[in-house]
Amino acid sequence: MDPYLEAAVEEARTGLGEGGIPIGSVLVHEGRIIGRGHNRRVQRGSTVLHGEMDALENAGRQAASVYRACTIYTTLSPCAMCSGAIVLYGIPRVVIGENRSFTGEESWLRERGVEIEVLQDEQCIALMRDFMAASPELWNEDIGV
Amino acid sequence: MDPYLEAAVEEARTGLGEGGIPIGSVLVHEGRIIGRGHNRRVQRGSTVLHGEMDALENAGRQAASVYRACTIYTTLSPCAMCSGAIVLYGIPRVVIGENRSFTGEESWLRERGVEIEVLQDEQCIALMRDFMAASPELWNEDIGV
Repeated sequence: MDPYLEAAVEEARTGLGEGGIPIGSVLVHEGRIIGRGHNRRVQRGSTVLHGEMDALENAGRQAASVYRACTIYTTLSPCAMCSGAIVLYGIPRVVIGENRSFTGEESWLRERGVEIEVLQDEQCIALMRDFMAASPELWNEDIGV
Repeated sequence: MDPYLEAAVEEARTGLGEGGIPIGSVLVHEGRIIGRGHNRRVQRGSTVLHGEMDALENAGRQAASVYRACTIYTTLSPCAMCSGAIVLYGIPRVVIGENRSFTGEESWLRERGVEIEVLQDEQCIALMRDFMAASPELWNEDIGV
């Protein structure tokens, strides 16, 4: 498995172990992970810390030139909020574990010039499939449904 | 002045008093403010807590039906990240203090069916004009430039 996606999956599993929503993300700059995170809705009552947002938050304040040389990895296709953060900071590339469980704003990201790669990773698919079956209300809350 | 915009301006001024970026926001549900916040980049080293995000975070976990009956007020036109959060949660209406200093993703929000009202409030304009003149690097960092 891609080692960066593997790190994002580790984050997702950490979140699951905390009783949270199993979505993880890492922000990678020139081959190095500079931020990693996972969804914190349950753990912190957070409505803004999706996995990608948590990775961005944990990376701390970075120069625009850093974001523009980053790839963000996420276990699940990014929603409108996370896609907006990617557009705001000009992150040029997103690697997505899977988009079968949920397809976010990939079209909009592409329109904005962001390169998207979808891996359809079986671990990522299984994590979301099991979670969505076990906690459909929590999943719907996370995507505003 | 609209009392909700006034509350958002109070938030912006609080942020300024803390040495932060003077942008504030309130989330209003059926006439009641259920979340208020301001930009926390300087205060918390946060890259995700723009004013609108902080208001959403402070409102806590809400049902989709609540967001769909909300208006979000913000002193400045919402960037891609904050607009993405508005789209995610299906907030149907955004009242913007001003968009002269910075125009965010208003077109995209309209495409997604969000009603936008821009007040061009002089207090909001002055807050950003003075801040952008005093701290251009910090302002650029906040919008990923």
